[in-house]
Formats: sequence, structure tokens, C-alpha cells
Amino acid sequence: METITTHQRPIWLNPSGNIVQVIDQRLLPHQYAVLSLETVDDVIAAIRDMVVRGAPLIGVTAAYGVYLAVLNSRKQSCPDSYLDAECQRLISARPTAVNLSWAVKQVRRRVGEAAAYDDRVKAAMDEAERITQAEVENCRQIGLHGLSIIQEIAGKKPGQTVNILTHCNAGWLACVEYGTATAPIYAAASRGMDIHVWVDETRPLNQGARLTAWELGQGGVRHTVITDNAGGHLMQHGLVDMVIVGSDRATRTGDIANKIGTYLKALAAKDNHVPFYVALPSSTFDWELSDGVAGIPIEEREPDEVRYVQGASDNAIVRVLVPPAKSPAANFAFDVTPARLITGLITENGVCRADETDICRLFPEKFREKP
Amino acid sequence: METITTHQRPIWLNPSGNIVQVIDQRLLPHQYAVLSLETVDDVIAAIRDMVVRGAPLIGVTAAYGVYLAVLNSRKQSCPDSYLDAECQRLISARPTAVNLSWAVKQVRRRVGEAAAYDDRVKAAMDEAERITQAEVENCRQIGLHGLSIIQEIAGKKPGQTVNILTHCNAGWLACVEYGTATAPIYAAASRGMDIHVWVDETRPLNQGARLTAWELGQGGVRHTVITDNAGGHLMQHGLVDMVIVGSDRATRTGDIANKIGTYLKALAAKDNHVPFYVALPSSTFDWELSDGVAGIPIEEREPDEVRYVQGASDNAIVRVLVPPAKSPAANFAFDVTPARLITGLITENGVCRADETDICRLFPEKFREKP
Repeated sequence: METITTHQRPIWLNPSGNIVQVIDQRLLPHQYAVLSLETVDDVIAAIRDMVVRGAPLIGVTAAYGVYLAVLNSRKQSCPDSYLDAECQRLISARPTAVNLSWAVKQVRRRVGEAAAYDDRVKAAMDEAERITQAEVENCRQIGLHGLSIIQEIAGKKPGQTVNILTHCNAGWLACVEYGTATAPIYAAASRGMDIHVWVDETRPLNQGARLTAWELGQGGVRHTVITDNAGGHLMQHGLVDMVIVGSDRATRTGDIANKIGTYLKALAAKDNHVPFYVALPSSTFDWELSDGVAGIPIEEREPDEVRYVQGASDNAIVRVLVPPAKSPAANFAFDVTPARLITGLITENGVCRADETDICRLFPEKFREKP
Repeated sequence: METITTHQRPIWLNPSGNIVQVIDQRLLPHQYAVLSLETVDDVIAAIRDMVVRGAPLIGVTAAYGVYLAVLNSRKQSCPDSYLDAECQRLISARPTAVNLSWAVKQVRRRVGEAAAYDDRVKAAMDEAERITQAEVENCRQIGLHGLSIIQEIAGKKPGQTVNILTHCNAGWLACVEYGTATAPIYAAASRGMDIHVWVDETRPLNQGARLTAWELGQGGVRHTVITDNAGGHLMQHGLVDMVIVGSDRATRTGDIANKIGTYLKALAAKDNHVPFYVALPSSTFDWELSDGVAGIPIEEREPDEVRYVQGASDNAIVRVLVPPAKSPAANFAFDVTPARLITGLITENGVCRADETDICRLFPEKFREKP
């Protein structure tokens, strides 16, 4: 694991081009394992079971899922209806991240423009690769736009550390390279800036403690793991200069869904005048939605993800039960942070306020399409 | 464990009256064990290592700690300076809960009024028992005053469940009987009201998932364990009718310190117009303080409490490491919720607003003493 850098990717095609390979993110940081996804069922299970997670990566994985479906469509009596059904199954794997349906529909549309099997296979692979490469470039741009914000904050406290709080993992593991929320952090760190990251552990699946801490450690970025409960206290005492999080779905009005607990951090940031930024590529916008709390579907997952905690004990990965065996649990995976709590959105096209007018300034073409 | 009711106590004297016995709260809910505290060192370790925890129980345990010191003072050349030193050591065991120093000073004062060894022993035991009994009665009164609030909420939604969210454990395990935050809940449940409790798991030590869920299960109170991240989402969707928490120290102006993360729930309650109540006996007030964020000392505990999670696996209690072994962690144990976010304080003398004027109405004698 010591040789992994921030430019490793969490997903790639095998040399023969017929198997999608992914890092199994359920096992990090204690085990590094690669899973091979050979069928649409494999891809759906990987998304549903969170082998892969993070809105951009879910989109990219699903795009390759459509490619696997196209590969398999030669045997089908009616390839088009087969493909449509497989696309629908992929879209249903998880409900909240809009990148999933966006990417599936993108690849499906391109495939539909070809007729012969070989042309369809090539179209699907080309589009999946184009989406992948576009997300890499989007994240690189997000890093540069976010870097300006960090530099501005650093300019106000010369000689002092800039403390950034993040929730969940919106790093390269959640994307392809750079990450969304971490892209500005990596950009600042690679320029030698004095930064330190407060890493929310992010219950229930601890993507912060497991994945973000691992990524930052690999990248040599100074960080400290904290409980999800701690951020308000840190902000009350001036120990957070900015918050950056990712998003799973954003409305055209700037509400954002992100990992459960993000809303609480946004409230604390507002209460303590700490700037709160959301870093996201345009693929995460749901251009049809205006009200995030009412409109974004919030996934409710298996309660045992709350009741059990996984970690390392004696070099093995072990799950321990925390509450009484008879106590029920509930597991809401995301919450919605209203636009009024967000200082700005960091996108590949620049930074904007979290409101329809300013989002339209960066993505005017999306507002010319029917809502 | 099945026979334990809400009237079991977490602390008692052995029949000979020379050993303090406590439930080891570090092992619940998976193991029920009783520890014997025979010396002041035992008491300090039990408080510091959180064998016992919760502001009222810390106070009661420390009161019995002074009693053990008095028992041991016969061998000392200078019993008074020995006692003063032992009291100081007890007070230093944990910094945030003011009940600790309050109870120690109460017993020390009473002991100082006696001269002969036997009289001092009796004075210490009497005062420790008086404090214990007073806390039981305080919690009972808190239950009755809080019950009125729950009944008022229930009256506004006839035929529907009243959903109460609580953070950490402010139950009988944290007190002696009834609890503070749980006292109104038990009072409502015992009257057959239709209530349901959202139990914040309360990282890092999971006092909610481990202790509150266990208590409520034992008491037959319907409850659901949630991550600390979930409360905001629940409130946004009308699934929380009120929040009740305990406190470790309150200022004369109504700011309250409580388990880390309480402040975040108070912000979410305010943002969603959900009433936010703090249940606390008068022993939890620090009558000298006016500014909670600036004045209440916040304990920073061992980072491994964040890095490791304890639970049951194969009928054994196991600790698992969650983040990478090299990632540092920070462990702030409490935060301060400013009075402006609090709907009311539920005390043994009644319910008041979280402001100096209204607190003074309930406890005028405290405001006549020097500030």
C-alpha cells in the first residue's frame, strides 16, 4: 500500500477490455483488494454494497456497467430492450447520487447512435472512457478553483496553518483522480501550503476515518480524525477556517444532498461564520429539481450498518456489535443542506454562489434546456 | 440482565459499608459486571476511566470517595491535610462535570464540622447518602416537570407517537435513579403514553447506543438507534417532536456543556423549530460562570477512544481499529450549547427559560450568594 499515490485510480479496465476492476473500498484502510466486475450484476452489487461509492465514481462505474451490458447484448434476441432493461437495473442500484442515471443515460444514448454490434461496443467503451476522462479533468479544475479560495484564506493568516474540515470521502477514491472536496486540498498541499485537515469519521460506514484519512496519509497531507460530533466545538473555538464537502446530488437552486451529517456541519459553519463550500462536477446537478429537502430521494440502508462497526483486530477485519442485540436502528444515508447555508459551489467551470442565478452563470446551457 | 429495571442503581455501598460498588459501564450492554472501589485511588480511576460517568453519578461517586478517604484518615498523622489533598485529587479526576467538585466540597464541609474520627466517618456517610437521595428526588421531580412538556406536545398530535431525540446517556446509569433527560421519558412511558426515542449513538464511546438503548430496552421504551449524523435529517422531515439532553455543567446564564455533538443537535432543532430542552439538577449549575463557551473547561481525552470502537464479536468484547494505524485523532469530550439555542431547562424546581432572570426565579438563593 505504501506506493499508492493520489494519482492511482479506483477503477480501470483489464488489458483485454472485458472486465472492470475496482478497489474494494469496504476493506480499506486495513486491506487493499481489487475486485473484478464481469457482468452487470457484478456492477450493480458493487454499487449497492459500496465496493465503489462516491457520486462521480458511481457514475463512472455505471458507465462501464452499460459497456458490459453492450458486450453481452450480442447473445440477446432483442439487444435494445435488453440494454434498456439493464440500464434501468443499473440506475436502480442506489437512489441518491444523480451521477448514476446521468452516466447510464449518456452511454445508452451514444450506443443508440450505432447499429452494428462492434460499433456499439466501441461507442460504449468510448463514452465510458470519455466520461471517466471528463471527471478527471473536472476534478482537476475543481482543484484549481478551490485552491484560490484556500490561498485567499491563507493570505489572511500569514504564517499560520489553514485548517479545513471535511465530511465523508470526496477524494480520488470517490471520483477517479484528485477527488472533488480533496482536489483543492491536494492542490494546496502540492504547492507546499501549510494546511491541516480535520477528518470527520463519518458514521455509519466511516468513509472519513477509513478512506479520507488513508488518502491524505498516502498523499502526505497532515490530518486528524475526529468524531462527527466534534466539528461544532472546533468551529466555536476558531479551529476551522473552511469546510469543503462533496455532493451526491445538487438542485438547480443550490441545495445539496451529501453524506448524512453534512447539514449539521453546515449549520455549525453558519453559526460560527466559517465558510462552507461544496465541491462538485456538473454531473452531480439534477437540473430538474428546485427543492432539495422535498425532492432529493434519501436512501435508507440496512440498519446493521449502524449496529455493527468494522475495523482491524489482530490483523483481521472484524465486525463488532455496539448496541444491545434487541435494539433496532435506522440508517439514513444522506441529508440535504439547503442553499442558504452554503458559501459557494466549486465546480469545473468556477466558483459560484449556491443560487439559481449564479449557477446559471456557470452553466447557462443547462438552463436553456427544458427544466 | 433481564431483571434489571429502571430503579436499579449504578452505585451502592456493600453491607459492611466500607466498599463502594458500581456497575462497570464500560462493558454494557454486552457484559454486566460490578466493580468494588475500596480506596480513593479506585474511585479516581473509576471516574477517570469512565467506569462511572454522567454528571450526577460522578458527583455521587466522588462523595463516596471522600467517605473512603475519611475512613482511611485514622492512619494519617494530619487527617485534615490528608483529606484536603484527597479531595483535590478527586476533583481533578475529570474537568468538565461541576457536580464532581460540588459534591466533594459538600462532604468535606460536613466532615469539617465533626472532630472525632467516628463522628467524621458518620458525617461523611450521611452526607454522601443525603446527596445520593437528593439526586434521586431531583431526578424524580425533573421527570414530573418534563412530563408536562411531553403531555403538551402529545396534546397537539392526538393519536400519534411523540418522537423524542436524546444524545448520550442521561439515564439512571448517569444519575442514581430515573436519570435526567430520561426521567420525563420514563414518566411518560409509565403512564402508557405513545412515545418513541431516537437514540444518538454518541461517538466516541457510544453511550447512547450502549447505555441509553440498553436502559430503554430494559424499561420497555420503544426506541431506535441512529448515528449522531442523522438528527438533522430527522428534524427536517418532522420526525422529531422534541429533544431532551442532560448536562455536565451549566452557567448561571443558561449555557450548557454536554457530551460532544449536543451543540450540533441544538442548531438543527433551532433551524427546524423543534423544542430543545436540557434536563439537569441544580448540582450541575456552576453559579460562578456566565459564559459557557469561554468558561467551561472541555476535557480532551485519549485519541484511541476515537480510533478504536468496542463491541461484541462471538460473545467476547473486542476493540477494533477504524482509521489507518498512522492517522492521528483528537477526542474532545464535550461541547457548549449557548443558551440562545435552548427552549428550556428542566430542573427539580420546575422548567425555566435558559436565561439568568428565569434561572434566578427558580433558584433565588443561588443568586444571593456572591457570584
